[in-house]
Amino acid sequence: MKIYKERIKELQYSLKKEKLDAVVINRVLETGFLTGFYLSGCVLLVSKTNICAFVPKMLFEHFKSKVSFVEAVSSNDMKSAVLAEIKKSKFKIKKTAFQPETETYINGMFWKTRGLIEKTGLTASLRLVKKGAELKAIRKSCHIAAEAFAIIKPRIKTGRTEISIARELEGIMQSMGATGPSFDTIVAFGANSARPHHETSMRVLKKNEAILIDYGCVYDFYCSDRTKTFFYGKAGAEFKKVYSIVEASQKKAIKALKSGTKASFIDKIARDVIMDKGYGQYFVHGTGHGVGLEIHEAPTVNSKSKDILKEGMILTVEPGIYLNGKFGVRIEDTLLVKKKGYEILTK
Amino acid sequence: MKIYKERIKELQYSLKKEKLDAVVINRVLETGFLTGFYLSGCVLLVSKTNICAFVPKMLFEHFKSKVSFVEAVSSNDMKSAVLAEIKKSKFKIKKTAFQPETETYINGMFWKTRGLIEKTGLTASLRLVKKGAELKAIRKSCHIAAEAFAIIKPRIKTGRTEISIARELEGIMQSMGATGPSFDTIVAFGANSARPHHETSMRVLKKNEAILIDYGCVYDFYCSDRTKTFFYGKAGAEFKKVYSIVEASQKKAIKALKSGTKASFIDKIARDVIMDKGYGQYFVHGTGHGVGLEIHEAPTVNSKSKDILKEGMILTVEPGIYLNGKFGVRIEDTLLVKKKGYEILTK
Repeated sequence: MKIYKERIKELQYSLKKEKLDAVVINRVLETGFLTGFYLSGCVLLVSKTNICAFVPKMLFEHFKSKVSFVEAVSSNDMKSAVLAEIKKSKFKIKKTAFQPETETYINGMFWKTRGLIEKTGLTASLRLVKKGAELKAIRKSCHIAAEAFAIIKPRIKTGRTEISIARELEGIMQSMGATGPSFDTIVAFGANSARPHHETSMRVLKKNEAILIDYGCVYDFYCSDRTKTFFYGKAGAEFKKVYSIVEASQKKAIKALKSGTKASFIDKIARDVIMDKGYGQYFVHGTGHGVGLEIHEAPTVNSKSKDILKEGMILTVEPGIYLNGKFGVRIEDTLLVKKKGYEILTK
Repeated sequence: MKIYKERIKELQYSLKKEKLDAVVINRVLETGFLTGFYLSGCVLLVSKTNICAFVPKMLFEHFKSKVSFVEAVSSNDMKSAVLAEIKKSKFKIKKTAFQPETETYINGMFWKTRGLIEKTGLTASLRLVKKGAELKAIRKSCHIAAEAFAIIKPRIKTGRTEISIARELEGIMQSMGATGPSFDTIVAFGANSARPHHETSMRVLKKNEAILIDYGCVYDFYCSDRTKTFFYGKAGAEFKKVYSIVEASQKKAIKALKSGTKASFIDKIARDVIMDKGYGQYFVHGTGHGVGLEIHEAPTVNSKSKDILKEGMILTVEPGIYLNGKFGVRIEDTLLVKKKGYEILTK
């Protein structure tokens, strides 16, 4: 409860700084972040001194029992109820904001055509740097992912399907307290590993094949993300070479992580190692992304990113080389950015 | 492949009818529906005679190998690439549409400020009535759900947690071919069942308690949805009474399903049965919703719905009565609307 009150206060501080009367919060990621109530359909109206939740009738008793520190109004026409409240409160409509990056086109246009103004980043800035309970949840989420892999790896044998490995891995994570996978688990055997987003299939493992597993879990609403690539059987020279390049790329990029570094610089370090070895064209994606309530969130770690790393950010470093028709190698960890370095959470 | 070509043709026919040059398709539900490629990040430009896919670099080889019947362009700046193509093709920008209901605010504003026009329902109308492979997938999805419940039910005993039942039920569905649950499985014991969207917890089952299980799975991208409520132990008079009212409400509403009926009329039938018995205020949600690629999609079955039922629509009928602090009863099936009636798919 304390943590939510603090987040609301931080948001209210931003409103004052931005000279706004209020902001409407409309997406479950943000309404959940501010109240701890992660069921969709609620809208929050946060003013400089107050907060009011507009809650669908069917969730009203549930919301009230869980979120005692926020005034709640039951409604089945949220947006109109919010508008009425804005007028009643004598807020200036032109000083009430909505966040374009969190709205659907239809909802955003509703606010815009009623005179509310666009203001990006009010809640995103709160979600960007992780602390306290968030960090604890992400640590546990990453720890579960790492432990579960250690359990599944010796069970991977010829004759098993990609799907059976994915299901078992998910089951192990859930038995450790995860509520589910943080995205569709990717298990790719042989040439399937050359597809960065392979759809896990009934493909059976044969002797002497590459195996790529990209997976993670959700623990207390927070995600983890990790990719392991290894060879089942006796790896040939090409796999060994490519693996060592990707490994060197990831290690070098990770070592550069610290508060104040540009995210684009991390991408450059990872990419340069791979380019120098002549595999640049096969590294077909960015180097990483932030992780939190969402599996992909800010910061962005690619060549075009404008993000600067800050202490408390959580991100992945995941270079890869994909040789179509042969195999792919991706190595990924979820990391915490520290003042003078980093911590690998998925190990 | 044939099915996707047919869908594209139907969309192109709509463009002609609406006197549009082209439409941009931007959401994975729709790009997947039209191509069979259900990975996010692709944008389609569909004209009256052509279709072009703009595919992220990392998915390009994967897309080409799966979707041979669509011209594909690799890009990492989709929206600009689409705009350039529109101009190159000499389409009239003002006769190229985007679908507001499928766009985020930021993407929708991008199209709008570049002169594209809003046009709702072009793909929604294709998704509304199910046929062929869709119907087959939904049937199987519903069949798995029904079979899995028959297996889990005798395993529900005092001492088991809500979460353990949810996990085991999901595991049974996956072992039958489901790719995962169609939403967060709700298992609610005792007073928890009075929350329509209870968050499945570590709560342990005791003797003589209500049990509500709301669940479903995804099979070949299509969802199923079902709720079973029953009593573990010896039910008291109040539970028996409430159960029989909800059961009568659901039965009567289901019997009214047929092509041509108003969805709001189905809601009225279900609601009247419950109101007549004096429980109207405890039926705090709509009577049902469409089911397909999404767990909640058109048509809407509530008092305000303007939808008219058509042969081939899939929807739920799920009245409920929730007695805060005591128990809740919801009974839900997924059904197919037929010309002169209906078919219950979740049994």
